Amino acid sequence: MDNNAPIGVFDSGVSGLTVAREIMRQIPNERIVYFGDTARVPYGSKSKQTILKFSRQIIRFLKTEGVKAIVIACNTASALALDDIEKELDIPIIGVVRSGASMAAKATKNKRVGIIATEGTINSNIYKDYLSSIDSEITVIGKACPLFVPLVEEGMIDDPVTKEIATRYLNYLRNENIDTLILGCTHYPLLRNTIKEIMGDGVTLVNPAYETAVELKTLLKEKNLANIKEYESASVMYKFYVSDAAEKFSRFANSIMPFDIMPAQQINIDEY
Amino acid sequence: MDNNAPIGVFDSGVSGLTVAREIMRQIPNERIVYFGDTARVPYGSKSKQTILKFSRQIIRFLKTEGVKAIVIACNTASALALDDIEKELDIPIIGVVRSGASMAAKATKNKRVGIIATEGTINSNIYKDYLSSIDSEITVIGKACPLFVPLVEEGMIDDPVTKEIATRYLNYLRNENIDTLILGCTHYPLLRNTIKEIMGDGVTLVNPAYETAVELKTLLKEKNLANIKEYESASVMYKFYVSDAAEKFSRFANSIMPFDIMPAQQINIDEY
Repeated sequence: MDNNAPIGVFDSGVSGLTVAREIMRQIPNERIVYFGDTARVPYGSKSKQTILKFSRQIIRFLKTEGVKAIVIACNTASALALDDIEKELDIPIIGVVRSGASMAAKATKNKRVGIIATEGTINSNIYKDYLSSIDSEITVIGKACPLFVPLVEEGMIDDPVTKEIATRYLNYLRNENIDTLILGCTHYPLLRNTIKEIMGDGVTLVNPAYETAVELKTLLKEKNLANIKEYESASVMYKFYVSDAAEKFSRFANSIMPFDIMPAQQINIDEY
Repeated sequence: MDNNAPIGVFDSGVSGLTVAREIMRQIPNERIVYFGDTARVPYGSKSKQTILKFSRQIIRFLKTEGVKAIVIACNTASALALDDIEKELDIPIIGVVRSGASMAAKATKNKRVGIIATEGTINSNIYKDYLSSIDSEITVIGKACPLFVPLVEEGMIDDPVTKEIATRYLNYLRNENIDTLILGCTHYPLLRNTIKEIMGDGVTLVNPAYETAVELKTLLKEKNLANIKEYESASVMYKFYVSDAAEKFSRFANSIMPFDIMPAQQINIDEY
């Protein structure tokens, strides 16, 4: 495998760019091919069978780009598809869920960890499974928060309505004496301030994007896959693909990225 | 064409069942094949190109079921795909948008009509175009309400948070002196009471599902396509297909239908 090959990163839509951004920050000389499945977003309440099919199509596409490793930036796809796909694949693959779980296991003192995520991620019990396999004494309390994604997408980040809904969702977790809370959906870190205010200082918030980049860096080193070449500009290093409406994506990407990205290209994901 | 052939009805997901239900009520001896694109729901903020592709795939599938006419129960797909698809098709097709527009044109006295819908439907300007072609003096004021669908799907029908969000969305329309408001998304009639309360008695709410069934009945008669045979049970008359998680669909369908439907079958829509 070519050390200069790119990392494939995929998500159900745009918010996985926060994971890509963290990889760019922590491993600045790795190339990235990002795919956002904007034609079929969201994944959160769809079945395992469908998410597995979508993920396999995306991975077939990313392989045509010659990627040397894959990062599932979407919590739902990590929860429902990673374990199956890992067995089928001849290159390394990691997902935000495992990284988030290992970070939470390190952070908790009282061994009571909360997880907020989409219905798909919560019902999969995957965070519970990973955390139990790391430390069987950890108790995991999950809560699906289906309105967080549309509220973020409406731009209602600092809004009394969002606070009211967050309070309802989080009250359940506040009564459970957790000391660590995993933000198990890539949109949720954007509500970090509201969540922090409701949960209080005694609860550590875990953003899996950070730990995913750490894990990727270690993995590339272990497998002798780290890039050795230097690149000069983002336009050479980063490529962005989507399944719907490339313009909308580029607008969002440019709002969260530290540089202007190349226009995203739209592809027909059904063909893969 | 066989008069006993079924009507094809499709939607981005489950809520188009409210349109199917209205057809069952008004034309009780017509057979129906319903398709809900639950793997790719929602359509509301996706591009015309993508919605057109999805609609063509669904129509190819419905034709394998031998349908004699097609009803687009989804406002977004009606707005973005009906005009193109009509030209390509050899059987009659109607959509909720045109039906809703013609009903609103009859209802308005002051020729000021409001429309609430998804971003896709509002940005398409299609209700405006249809209403202008019926009566060029009608002014149309549109407002996208992206949070209504997730709020309905969270079951927050009678909730102060929903009322607060509805008040924000509808304030804009209240200042525009409209006397008619089209509920331009199949989820919105479920919020009818809240919307009515905010808009007041002076505003007529138009639910396109009703008029769509009226239009279908007229169309079948005109084209000599009306069914002449009598059927005994719903299980013979109505078939339901989805692209994801058939069980979830059947649960919702049975909650709004006046009879227990046959289990929905899941198909792979990419293959069409």
